[in-house]
Amino acid sequence: MSGQSQQQGVALVIGAGDSTGGAIARRFAAGGLTVCVTRRSADKLQPLVDSIRAAGGRALAFGSDARKEEEVAALVERIEAEIGPIEVLVFNIGANVPSSVLDETARKYFKIWEMACFSGFLNAREVARRMVQRERGTILFTGATAALRGAANFAAFAGAKHALRALAQSMARELGPRNIHVAHVVVDGAIDTEFIRSNFPERYALKDQDGILNPDHIAENYWHLHQQPRDAWTFELDLRPWMERW
Amino acid sequence: MSGQSQQQGVALVIGAGDSTGGAIARRFAAGGLTVCVTRRSADKLQPLVDSIRAAGGRALAFGSDARKEEEVAALVERIEAEIGPIEVLVFNIGANVPSSVLDETARKYFKIWEMACFSGFLNAREVARRMVQRERGTILFTGATAALRGAANFAAFAGAKHALRALAQSMARELGPRNIHVAHVVVDGAIDTEFIRSNFPERYALKDQDGILNPDHIAENYWHLHQQPRDAWTFELDLRPWMERW
Amino acid sequence: MSGQSQQQGVALVIGAGDSTGGAIARRFAAGGLTVCVTRRSADKLQPLVDSIRAAGGRALAFGSDARKEEEVAALVERIEAEIGPIEVLVFNIGANVPSSVLDETARKYFKIWEMACFSGFLNAREVARRMVQRERGTILFTGATAALRGAANFAAFAGAKHALRALAQSMARELGPRNIHVAHVVVDGAIDTEFIRSNFPERYALKDQDGILNPDHIAENYWHLHQQPRDAWTFELDLRPWMERW
Amino acid sequence: MSGQSQQQGVALVIGAGDSTGGAIARRFAAGGLTVCVTRRSADKLQPLVDSIRAAGGRALAFGSDARKEEEVAALVERIEAEIGPIEVLVFNIGANVPSSVLDETARKYFKIWEMACFSGFLNAREVARRMVQRERGTILFTGATAALRGAANFAAFAGAKHALRALAQSMARELGPRNIHVAHVVVDGAIDTEFIRSNFPERYALKDQDGILNPDHIAENYWHLHQQPRDAWTFELDLRPWMERW
Repeated sequence: MSGQSQQQGVALVIGAGDSTGGAIARRFAAGGLTVCVTRRSADKLQPLVDSIRAAGGRALAFGSDARKEEEVAALVERIEAEIGPIEVLVFNIGANVPSSVLDETARKYFKIWEMACFSGFLNAREVARRMVQRERGTILFTGATAALRGAANFAAFAGAKHALRALAQSMARELGPRNIHVAHVVVDGAIDTEFIRSNFPERYALKDQDGILNPDHIAENYWHLHQQPRDAWTFELDLRPWMERW
Repeated sequence: MSGQSQQQGVALVIGAGDSTGGAIARRFAAGGLTVCVTRRSADKLQPLVDSIRAAGGRALAFGSDARKEEEVAALVERIEAEIGPIEVLVFNIGANVPSSVLDETARKYFKIWEMACFSGFLNAREVARRMVQRERGTILFTGATAALRGAANFAAFAGAKHALRALAQSMARELGPRNIHVAHVVVDGAIDTEFIRSNFPERYALKDQDGILNPDHIAENYWHLHQQPRDAWTFELDLRPWMERW
Repeated sequence: MSGQSQQQGVALVIGAGDSTGGAIARRFAAGGLTVCVTRRSADKLQPLVDSIRAAGGRALAFGSDARKEEEVAALVERIEAEIGPIEVLVFNIGANVPSSVLDETARKYFKIWEMACFSGFLNAREVARRMVQRERGTILFTGATAALRGAANFAAFAGAKHALRALAQSMARELGPRNIHVAHVVVDGAIDTEFIRSNFPERYALKDQDGILNPDHIAENYWHLHQQPRDAWTFELDLRPWMERW
Repeated sequence: MSGQSQQQGVALVIGAGDSTGGAIARRFAAGGLTVCVTRRSADKLQPLVDSIRAAGGRALAFGSDARKEEEVAALVERIEAEIGPIEVLVFNIGANVPSSVLDETARKYFKIWEMACFSGFLNAREVARRMVQRERGTILFTGATAALRGAANFAAFAGAKHALRALAQSMARELGPRNIHVAHVVVDGAIDTEFIRSNFPERYALKDQDGILNPDHIAENYWHLHQQPRDAWTFELDLRPWMERW
C-alpha cells in the first residue's frame, strides 16, 4: 500500500462490536475504503454504520459467527462478489476471563481459543486465499500483552493470544514474499471502553491523564501499518499509555 | 524434589508412544518412581512396560485419549486411588504436519491444537489439582522450536506449541509459589526416532556424528529438572545437537 | 506529541552522516522542527543542510564526537542555549564489521560498543536531563536485527546493539511516566545506501523490487512514533522489506 | 563431555570471589577437574583453595585483572603451559549498582560494561582459541534477569548483561559446530551471599523457606550443562526460587 490518497476496495473488520474495532472501521472508511464490519448479530452494528455514513464513508454491517467455517467462507465470498476486493482484513476478536488454572473449565478454555485464535485462522486464511490471487493486501491482528507472556490466571487467554501471534508470524513469513502485509499489534494497557468504565472505575479515572488507550489512536496505528510501503513493513508494534508499568 | 536417592510415588507420562516419552519413562523408573505411561491404545505400550520391568522398574500402561476430559479425569482418579500420588507429570504429545496456511484445513488446524495443547491443559489441570493439595509435584512439558517462532507453513503447529508454552508459563507463575515445579523443554532438532529414520534419511545419517538428539539424553534433562531443589528451579531450557543451525 | 500541525523546537539527529540519519533529519524538518545534525566532521553535513534549507526547512550542522562526554555536554548545552529546546533526539550511529570471535580484537570490540552504545548513552542521558525538566520529549534509537539475536561473527555488533536496546528499554520504563517517549526501531534488512550499492551489488539490485529499505520510508516511521499521542506509545517496531527472509 | 566418571583437565573460573563462583569451583573440583580460580587479588582466594584441597580436590588461585587483555592472555598461556588444557571456562563477574539513567555517570556506565561484558569477551576469546585447536570444551556465562529485560534504573547493568548474552549466543552459534559447548545461565533471584545478608535482610530471611538461591544448587546446574552429551546441548536455562515473582 502506498500514498495518502483515497484508496479503493474493502476493509473487512472482524469483531467491530467493541470500541477498538469500531474506531478502526471509522479510520479505514475515512481513508476511502468501503468498510465491512461484522459481529455475531448485525443489528448492534447499525450505530457504527450510521456514524461512518454520516461522516461520508461507506460501511456495511454483517452478522456472522467468525468461528464457523461455512459462515466465514460465505461472508468473504459475498463481499468479494457484491462489494469489492478485500484489501484489508482486521481481526479484532478476543476477550479474557481470568481464572486460576485449577478452576478453568475445558469448555471455557476451548471457547477462549476458538474465539480469539481459531476464528482468526478461519478469517485470515479465507481472505488470504483471495489476496494471493491479486498479489496484494494487508492483514492486521489485534494482540495483547498476553501474546508475549503467560501470567498467572491467564492460561486460556495467553494460550489463545500466543497462538494468534504464531499464526500472524507464520502468515507474515509465508505471505510477505507474496506481497501480503501481515502485522500484529500488541495492545498493552486498558482501552477506553464501556467495559473498563464499568468494571475498573479506578483504572478508567486515569483517562483524564491519558492513562488509558484511546481507540482512535489505536486505529491510527493500524492505518499507519496499512500505509507502509512494501520496502519497510512492520510485523509487530506495541502500544501502551505513557504511564503504564511494563 | 531433592536428593539422588530413590524416590517414591508416580510419574505419569502422557504420550509415551514415541521414543522421547519412552526414554523419559525409563529414566523416571530408574529413579525409583512408579511409571504410568499412556497412549490412545495401551497394547502398544507393552514393550516399553516390559523393558522397564526387566530393568527392575515399576511400570503400568493405560489406554487413554488425552483429549477427552472424562478419560483424563478417570485416569488421574484411578492412578491416585490405586497406585499412588502423582509426583511427576510429563506431557509429551504433539506432532507437526506442515501446510501452507492457504491449504490448512480447519479440521487439521483444530486437531493439532487439540492434541498438542488442549490435552496438555486437561492433563496438567487435573494433576495440578491433586498436587496443590499435597503442596508438591513436578509438571514438565515438551516444547519445540515452534513454541518460540512461527515459521512459514507451521501456523497450526506453532500455534499449538506457543499456546502450550503460555500454559506452562501461566501454571509456573501460579503454582510455583504453591511448591509445584512447572517447566518447559524446547527441543530444537531432530530426535533419533523411527519417523526421522524413515522420512528424513539424510538427517538421520547425522546420527553418526551425534547430529540428532538421543532420547535418553533428553530424558536425562527431564530428570535433572525434577531433581532441582526448590530454591533453584528452571522454567525453561533448550536442547539441540552441537551441529544444529539456529 | 500530538497533532499534524507544524511543530516547534529542535530535533537533534546524532549520526546524520548516512542515508537514514539524513532522511530522518529531512522528515523532522518538514514537520516544522529545527533540525540539528551531527557527525564527527561537520563539513560533510553541508549537502544535507543545504537540501533541507532548499526545501524550506531549518537545519544546522555540528561537528561533534558522540563518544566524548564533554563534547556531548557542550553540544546539548549550546543547542539549548542558542537554538531552542530539544524536543526530539534520534540516535542513529552504529556500524558492523563482522569477525569470527576468535579473530575479534579487543580494540575493535570496544570501539563498536563505544560507537553504537556508549555514545547512545551519553547523548540520551544528556538530552533526557533537559527533557525531564520540561516534562516532554521523544528519544528514538535506531536498532538492528542484531539487537535481538547474536549471530555467528556478530559478537561485537550484537553486543553493542543488545546493550543499546537495554538502554532504550530502561529509559522507556523510567522516563515514560515522566512524559518522555522512548522508542527503539529494529531495522531488519539492507538499506538503500552507497555502502550497500558498492559492497553488495546483488543485494542492491533488489531495489527494483523494493527489496531494500528506502531511508525516506524508515524516516516516516520515526515521524509516526514522534506523532503518537501519549495514551498510545510504541516502544518497539521492526521494519523489513516484504521479501526479506526472517 | 560425557559420563559421570572423574574428568581431567582444567576448569578456569573467572570471578571466583563470590559465593557462586566459589561453589562452581568446588563442584568442578569434585568432578575431577583441576580448578583454577581468579580474582583481582589472589590472596582472598586462599580459603576457597584450602577448602577444595581439604575435600581432596585440586585448586590453584591466580590474581588477574580480567579486564586487561595482556593479563588475560598471560593467565591462559600460563595455565595451558603449566597446568593443563582448559576444558571448562566459567565467566562469573558482574555487579549491579542501580541508578536513574539521569544520574548515571559515564565512568560507572563504562566500568559496569567493562567488568561484566568486556572481560567476558577477553577471557572467552582467549580460551576459545585454545579449545578450537583441541575441538572440545565448555564455556559457561553467568547471566541475570537483566540480560533479558531493561528495567528502570538498570541501564548500565542491563546493557552489560544483554551484551554478554549476545556474546554467548554469537559464540554458541559459531563454536557449537566446532564442538565447543557455550551456554548462558539466567540467575533470576537473590543468591545466598554475604551481600544479600547485609544489605537486604528481609530478603535474606526468605532463606528459611528456600526463597533465595543456594550457590551449591546453582553450581550443580553448571555441572549438568558441562555433562550434557553433544547431541543435546542447552544454550540457556533460567534459575529462580520457587516463590520468586517473575
